[in-house]
Amino acid sequence: MIRCPRGTRDFLPDEMERRRYYENILRTTARTFGFREVATPIFEETELFVMRSGPNILNEIYSFKDKGDRDIALRPELTAPVMRMFVNGMSNDPRPLKLFYFGQCFRYERPQSGRYREFFQFGAELIGNANAETDAEAIALAASMIRALGLRGYKIRIGHVGVLRKMLADAKVPQERSAEVLQKLDKKLYDEAGTLLEAMGVGRGTAEKIFKITETVGGREVLDLISDDAASYLRELTDMLASMNVTDTEIDLGVVRGLDYYTGMVFEAEAPSLGAEKQICGGGSYSLSELFGGEKVFSTGFAIGFDRILLAMEKEGRRYEREGIDAYVVPVSDDIRHDAARIVSMLRSAGVSADIDIMRRKMAKALKQASAAGARYAVIVGRNELNEDSVTVRDMGTGDQKMVGLNDLAALFRR
Amino acid sequence: MIRCPRGTRDFLPDEMERRRYYENILRTTARTFGFREVATPIFEETELFVMRSGPNILNEIYSFKDKGDRDIALRPELTAPVMRMFVNGMSNDPRPLKLFYFGQCFRYERPQSGRYREFFQFGAELIGNANAETDAEAIALAASMIRALGLRGYKIRIGHVGVLRKMLADAKVPQERSAEVLQKLDKKLYDEAGTLLEAMGVGRGTAEKIFKITETVGGREVLDLISDDAASYLRELTDMLASMNVTDTEIDLGVVRGLDYYTGMVFEAEAPSLGAEKQICGGGSYSLSELFGGEKVFSTGFAIGFDRILLAMEKEGRRYEREGIDAYVVPVSDDIRHDAARIVSMLRSAGVSADIDIMRRKMAKALKQASAAGARYAVIVGRNELNEDSVTVRDMGTGDQKMVGLNDLAALFRR
Repeated sequence: MIRCPRGTRDFLPDEMERRRYYENILRTTARTFGFREVATPIFEETELFVMRSGPNILNEIYSFKDKGDRDIALRPELTAPVMRMFVNGMSNDPRPLKLFYFGQCFRYERPQSGRYREFFQFGAELIGNANAETDAEAIALAASMIRALGLRGYKIRIGHVGVLRKMLADAKVPQERSAEVLQKLDKKLYDEAGTLLEAMGVGRGTAEKIFKITETVGGREVLDLISDDAASYLRELTDMLASMNVTDTEIDLGVVRGLDYYTGMVFEAEAPSLGAEKQICGGGSYSLSELFGGEKVFSTGFAIGFDRILLAMEKEGRRYEREGIDAYVVPVSDDIRHDAARIVSMLRSAGVSADIDIMRRKMAKALKQASAAGARYAVIVGRNELNEDSVTVRDMGTGDQKMVGLNDLAALFRR
Repeated sequence: MIRCPRGTRDFLPDEMERRRYYENILRTTARTFGFREVATPIFEETELFVMRSGPNILNEIYSFKDKGDRDIALRPELTAPVMRMFVNGMSNDPRPLKLFYFGQCFRYERPQSGRYREFFQFGAELIGNANAETDAEAIALAASMIRALGLRGYKIRIGHVGVLRKMLADAKVPQERSAEVLQKLDKKLYDEAGTLLEAMGVGRGTAEKIFKITETVGGREVLDLISDDAASYLRELTDMLASMNVTDTEIDLGVVRGLDYYTGMVFEAEAPSLGAEKQICGGGSYSLSELFGGEKVFSTGFAIGFDRILLAMEKEGRRYEREGIDAYVVPVSDDIRHDAARIVSMLRSAGVSADIDIMRRKMAKALKQASAAGARYAVIVGRNELNEDSVTVRDMGTGDQKMVGLNDLAALFRR
């Protein structure tokens, strides 16, 4: 028996309805912030992702040759495609561009809880500026989306790549090797980072100071520990966020995100209930368009892991109530199937969600099916009632029944 | 400069908003009919598509080996994946299952007007029965979706594979070769069909009769030309459709759809404005689950070509008006950026879609940006007005301005 490929999922009706419901909350929130949706293809030239992330990405992505011998890859993330799209077709548009997207991404990795080979990302990019308002707008949107979904246990941590980069530069770590060290620090791999730093001639005391900074977490006051441009920038940003009523964040100078193209503020959100795979959102300010042949443009963006955030909500015991349908139409006998079909069509034309028994079931079984379909009312169509231009309407919750004239039927379902 | 791969597209904000708008019309219509959404992965084991369509499909699909040496393929259509999902996880659910889906499909073919390598299909499957109500339900949904979109120039043509299959059987065409002939007839390639039939020993007169049937198009009355089970079934179906107020269909015995798994009724919809690539919808009753290791279950389904239907509406001159945003907040000077941020956040929390100048533009330029963002109102935040807990609201359509108290601001935007 063929099954769906390892690390991918089928979404059955209950699960899909739940996903669409939450997806629409994210979409509505982004629109409320003045962001507009875009979409890019499922696959891109492989080169695009290598340019963004380096050649190691090839070990983790679905890359292949198409029939025209082109190297293409299923997208592992959406920032690079969206910036490519910006360079190709939007670089002359008035700035800032406020874009969002929702779609599948693909990584060839070992499937585990919260990690799939096909997973869904919701993200946003604010293209065209680097200032505190821009960064605040991005963080405020991320926070609003997480809140709008109803996730309770989450943390947003804000850092700045400038802090550690400056410390590494002051310690004479060559610029082209600092990403290597930062990647270790990002994962809190202090032993490995220490070995690297030692080999670069950085003294133990300096290394310890650097490690200590990565563990600097707290409120606005922790910024007093450092005195550089990054700290004063983060102060300005925190003030702006406070004006926007986003106060549930913390400063974490250990948020570094190990990629070269980040230029300043970086932030992450996590849901502690998820354990090891707790990160649900990550982003920051960056510059990427010049890599893809465009002019250098500062941007701020982030991506939310949709699957993980749904998983976190499940762990919090959040339940989604399926919507069901308004009416289930049941003909009492075979000879009035046509009348039943006419009535279901009339309801649907009026915008009432209505289903009809097409299995020619007997009454009792049809009512059971109405219940399984989540119908609020059963509309029972019988000959005697039809002769009076009426049907019997049964409230599926209470079991109450009453006669309703056909002319009044659709109005009954108006909410 | 890297571009999106040949035959694929980026969807910029205006186009994407239009696509989501129409996609939601399709989704709402399907839900109104009691159908529920499902989703399957972007790629499947290649074998799945070969089982459905035969080995020739390999020439037209994106198939490749993953890092685990598995043969996988980007899905060229969604009926096979949905039936696989049914066999894997839904075969014990109460029948009928009424499922719909919307997503990307992929074919490696020469891109041309209305044909893309990445294209979007909206489809529905009614699993569990083979009767006139089932088929009528599927055709009524397809018709309702096309009408709900607002497409004017369309034709729905209904046929039955039984008619030609019976004629071929009567003419002693071996059963295993009839699909070959039907595929030629489906494309009206009479010369090639004639050569095939001749080689199978079918006389010229019989062949001509067969060809004539494939050109039998018209109202219910054309069914009088044939006298078999298929004709009486189509009469019953047409009656049921009439009860459901679907009367804009025609009978076309030339609709055959060249795949073996169709079992009875087949139908197509076309938009003549599209020229050569005019088909916008195709489907029929079929049996496929047993191929994928499940029990034999009769189903009826169809798929709508979303890209083509949008193209047809464009050709009809249908315009989509972008939604825009409610408010664009402009601080009159740099020192009240924080107040402006507070006001935009207040509006957003109240569900008002609101943007704010983050480029620190001067008033005139900021108002221009408000206009470009499609804002209905500009909310101008100045020191004097703030001292009276007020802002100036400018109607971007008329240019009228008035003072509004902060407590009354959100209510102004309620529609």
